Amino acid sequence: MIVHRFYCPNLPGGGVTTVELPEGEARHAAKVLRLRPGDQALLLNGQGLVCQAEISAVSRDARQVTCQIRERTLHREPTVRWHLYVAPPKGKTFDLVLRMATELGAWRIVPILCRYGVSRPEETSASWEQVLVTAMKQSVNPWLPAIESPCAFQIALEGASGCGFYGAVPSESEEASLLPCDKPDRCLWIGPEGGFTAEETASLRLAGYKPLTVGRWVLRVETAVAALLGRII
Amino acid sequence: MIVHRFYCPNLPGGGVTTVELPEGEARHAAKVLRLRPGDQALLLNGQGLVCQAEISAVSRDARQVTCQIRERTLHREPTVRWHLYVAPPKGKTFDLVLRMATELGAWRIVPILCRYGVSRPEETSASWEQVLVTAMKQSVNPWLPAIESPCAFQIALEGASGCGFYGAVPSESEEASLLPCDKPDRCLWIGPEGGFTAEETASLRLAGYKPLTVGRWVLRVETAVAALLGRII
Repeated sequence: MIVHRFYCPNLPGGGVTTVELPEGEARHAAKVLRLRPGDQALLLNGQGLVCQAEISAVSRDARQVTCQIRERTLHREPTVRWHLYVAPPKGKTFDLVLRMATELGAWRIVPILCRYGVSRPEETSASWEQVLVTAMKQSVNPWLPAIESPCAFQIALEGASGCGFYGAVPSESEEASLLPCDKPDRCLWIGPEGGFTAEETASLRLAGYKPLTVGRWVLRVETAVAALLGRII
Repeated sequence: MIVHRFYCPNLPGGGVTTVELPEGEARHAAKVLRLRPGDQALLLNGQGLVCQAEISAVSRDARQVTCQIRERTLHREPTVRWHLYVAPPKGKTFDLVLRMATELGAWRIVPILCRYGVSRPEETSASWEQVLVTAMKQSVNPWLPAIESPCAFQIALEGASGCGFYGAVPSESEEASLLPCDKPDRCLWIGPEGGFTAEETASLRLAGYKPLTVGRWVLRVETAVAALLGRII
């Protein structure tokens, strides 16, 4: 039996045991999934708190769904937080990147605008947030990754921790230690299909990042994200 | 400048320096890419041979494209061959699995029919081969992965090397050594979304495979393939 999962950013702490699902989630629970009192639900606040709950009431107009919290699990924040700086590929492929990064536990995602980038979104799309929420529920990852506004490469570089890796073309990579430093905030930089420019690569190296690849062949952005996160996380 | 890549399974060896592109590739080169004598091309035979070539003639009806081979590179066969046994997800998602596995250098792919599998293809689809060829050209991987006919889990298990890993749910996995044995043929088993059954898992363990996962959350099949190959390749 599948226990349906709901995103409740305002899950109450402490002794409160009753919670209303947010409007969109309530409608989905009542109208699409047709859940009824007595049905089980898993509630995630996206900040480490996961609650097992039971639906106790569904309003007649299906707008209000009330849950009784049965058990709370507060996950500890990970000791290493991976920040994914990635040049968004076109269209739906970026959704795939966001999904896979969430499943693998990326902490924060920054779309970067590189010289050879094929997609230059100007702002964070509401659909990106929806993709992250859906992936969080799907993977039961209690931490909803933060998504930043798209940012020029150089500005993103100045704001980053200086610890981590960049996705390199196979010939360029070297056997890098998988512990680049002991900072808790570490970055993975993945360039566009056309690669980082020589200047961008030089800036990354200068800032302290190490080249990293997997295998010996050319990777698409989405493959590089999943395989390199798989290597380092 | 992009050098276009073509799949030529019958690339001549030895002293022969003239080659005709296969019919489909010739049509694509002449009609879609509008290549002309003097244009450069990269020819891959899918078995380790990559040739830099120059187009020397295009027939008037665009059916024959002749190339002069300028330089041959014969890649050495990898010392470790990873065999991917994977329960195909539905529809186009399996194409994505095939693409990413090719970019990452999987040697051979076996679609397995598991108890909880959602897709039960009966034979190898011609479209799968096309996906592999396209991914090989895209990634400039000189080795076209073999794709087997879909195979029942237990039969596949009997024919496999007994060395490697299976994708486990996070709670079940342990810190496995990334060198499971020193056989050159190693296997990665990825189950369906619903997971392997307890019996399937027991069979895998009994056969010598170790549980492996990346991160702490539930991975979709395509994410597991890319991230686990990223971890072990």
